[in-house]
Amino acid sequence: MRIEIPTNAERFGANLFYPVQKIYELDGGFEVDSAFDNPFHVIQQIPYEQLYGIEKDLAIVIPVKDERLRLLEGVLSGIPHACLPIILSNSKSEPIDRFRMERNMVDTFCRYAKKKYIIAHQRSPELARIFTDGGYRHLLDDDGLVRHGKAEGMLAGIALAHLAGKKYVGFIDSDNFFPGAVYEYVRIFSAGLSQGKSPYSMVRIQWHSKPKIVGSELFFTKWGRVSRITNQYLNLFLSHYTGYETDVLRTGNAGEHALSMPLALSLDYSAGFSVETYHFVSLMEKFGGVLPGPYPEIMKNGVEVFQIESRNPHLHEAAKGDGHIREMIEYSLSVLWHSAICPAALKKEISAELRRQKITGKNREPVKLRQYPVLSGLNFKAAAKTTDWTQFGNFIPQ
Amino acid sequence: MRIEIPTNAERFGANLFYPVQKIYELDGGFEVDSAFDNPFHVIQQIPYEQLYGIEKDLAIVIPVKDERLRLLEGVLSGIPHACLPIILSNSKSEPIDRFRMERNMVDTFCRYAKKKYIIAHQRSPELARIFTDGGYRHLLDDDGLVRHGKAEGMLAGIALAHLAGKKYVGFIDSDNFFPGAVYEYVRIFSAGLSQGKSPYSMVRIQWHSKPKIVGSELFFTKWGRVSRITNQYLNLFLSHYTGYETDVLRTGNAGEHALSMPLALSLDYSAGFSVETYHFVSLMEKFGGVLPGPYPEIMKNGVEVFQIESRNPHLHEAAKGDGHIREMIEYSLSVLWHSAICPAALKKEISAELRRQKITGKNREPVKLRQYPVLSGLNFKAAAKTTDWTQFGNFIPQ
Repeated sequence: MRIEIPTNAERFGANLFYPVQKIYELDGGFEVDSAFDNPFHVIQQIPYEQLYGIEKDLAIVIPVKDERLRLLEGVLSGIPHACLPIILSNSKSEPIDRFRMERNMVDTFCRYAKKKYIIAHQRSPELARIFTDGGYRHLLDDDGLVRHGKAEGMLAGIALAHLAGKKYVGFIDSDNFFPGAVYEYVRIFSAGLSQGKSPYSMVRIQWHSKPKIVGSELFFTKWGRVSRITNQYLNLFLSHYTGYETDVLRTGNAGEHALSMPLALSLDYSAGFSVETYHFVSLMEKFGGVLPGPYPEIMKNGVEVFQIESRNPHLHEAAKGDGHIREMIEYSLSVLWHSAICPAALKKEISAELRRQKITGKNREPVKLRQYPVLSGLNFKAAAKTTDWTQFGNFIPQ
Repeated sequence: MRIEIPTNAERFGANLFYPVQKIYELDGGFEVDSAFDNPFHVIQQIPYEQLYGIEKDLAIVIPVKDERLRLLEGVLSGIPHACLPIILSNSKSEPIDRFRMERNMVDTFCRYAKKKYIIAHQRSPELARIFTDGGYRHLLDDDGLVRHGKAEGMLAGIALAHLAGKKYVGFIDSDNFFPGAVYEYVRIFSAGLSQGKSPYSMVRIQWHSKPKIVGSELFFTKWGRVSRITNQYLNLFLSHYTGYETDVLRTGNAGEHALSMPLALSLDYSAGFSVETYHFVSLMEKFGGVLPGPYPEIMKNGVEVFQIESRNPHLHEAAKGDGHIREMIEYSLSVLWHSAICPAALKKEISAELRRQKITGKNREPVKLRQYPVLSGLNFKAAAKTTDWTQFGNFIPQ
């Protein structure tokens, strides 16, 4: 990959938020290019070997919920071989057992491709056992099973990735029509993570564009309705503390993102569609230096957040209705509003925005979403002892 | 890349036409996977190093005609670094000088990415000079410039690729919305060509699907109207000689294709949109063993044609009207009809099809298109002597 060198990060406590980086080549060549032997170049080549160095330690969590099998197969074909796919399905098992079909398809595909994989149903007792035996019951409901929800599936995916011994974990949606875009997203993960100088780093993808059908034509939108609003208030949040207005944050709702495992285990998580926005809130709360926090290791090393613009548009299946969009706006803004360090002035502005969008009425607080504490609270040693890997596909940790 | 091993080719004289191969992984891993150490596996891994071995000798010709600059930039970003892009533009130079804009964009992009490139305008005297000085005037019109037309641009591209010392040449359209699809196409070229046991080989891409807007939804068509008809008659042509009905040929109109240079220089070419279909006609006429031909070297080595199905759908800009589709059908079928080895019965069927499609009237022959003899007739040594590479971008042959 050939990509801009990240510059001029906004600092907030121990956090460095880098501006969006532009990609020049999806494949930057096999050999190290001596054309870059010059300290004044603004583009860098990340050689394949370096990307591979990340990818062999990278698990890709693919949350699935009743998406089409052929799309999931395409997504698998786009993931670089060295990565370990973790399919976390919350698909129906009746009247048609979609999960069984997914499992069969993935198994056949990986048998042909000679690929290791992990698959789990979000509501299976085998998966729940990890959290029971690891003493992290926050994720379990009254039935003792992992709660419904995409964020909950993502947390289970992080736990599986860590148990599998992976050092990085990324997320890719299962309804992408373009395996070539999936391929690029994963390469962006490994390119981004390879830039990290701290063990605590994150990569977030800004989609190049999102094709919409307008009339009988395609229109390539750049900013989604939700992202536009989320990013605006995220930047105001940040600006309040730095004293300088900024638009550096562009990925407040980035579903496609990846984290180093130490960072993934050190963040709090929020339920539902606020999970991605809450990454920033958790970073600012915990490592922003405003609230006291017992994280000397992270404060010393710092946290790096890279934002990279994909070259591929994002064309996926799910069409989100208006109601869903308003829910997403509320969820994204609610985690800012409810933050212990949200400035009072910003709270007011957010409330006004939610009223303008006809999401909440006057004098009503935005919904407060369930939160999950750091996954490092899970006793992975205890969980590992009782994990039966044969239940989860063909991967056995070394 | 991980991909099916090609099987059960249809033989026609010295030609081997392989059935469509399916891809399992766009990136098949960095190291050689010992899981394939078994003679009974039906999937193969083509390691990155092997792909790279082809790509450093592969030129990618990108014909351009007034397409959007941003799409061309995206296409460039998708081409693996080791390949040499050759932009062959027939864009307008007035009232707006689009070619100058293309040239500036490509130059800036390649300056940042540190990429070698060749660019030429199809109607420039510099390009024409290659064919004048090389004594191949077939391609030139009365003004002494390379004729208009996509096929003509492709031929000029092949000549430039050969002058540049490249061993392979592939073609990618400039209006693809997905750089990840472009990336896959080129990887398919290098994977396919790396399979060749003969110095004379070709790779043709069958698109996974082509998204169409139907109502306000996307529908992923598998077979285009033109391809469906072209392939049907191509297969009938082949079946006539082998005595077995077949549907092995699926890529009669494959714009995305690549050839080894010895094969590219040994084929005849047909003008306009028939160029891709005519590949097959030329192969069957010259190396099919039906007509006598002075090609002992090729007859001995054989010709291999690989067909590979992409994982990415093909989403591009150009919308082709009904009139254009009928023209394409006529052009594709006309090269079969006019072939010296087209069986009389097939001629009748083609004529009937053209009448059914309301393309030609009764007792009218399909249009006879201009043909170009083998490019090996061009005196490349003479042309090389007078070629001023500084006119064509930043690439200087070694």
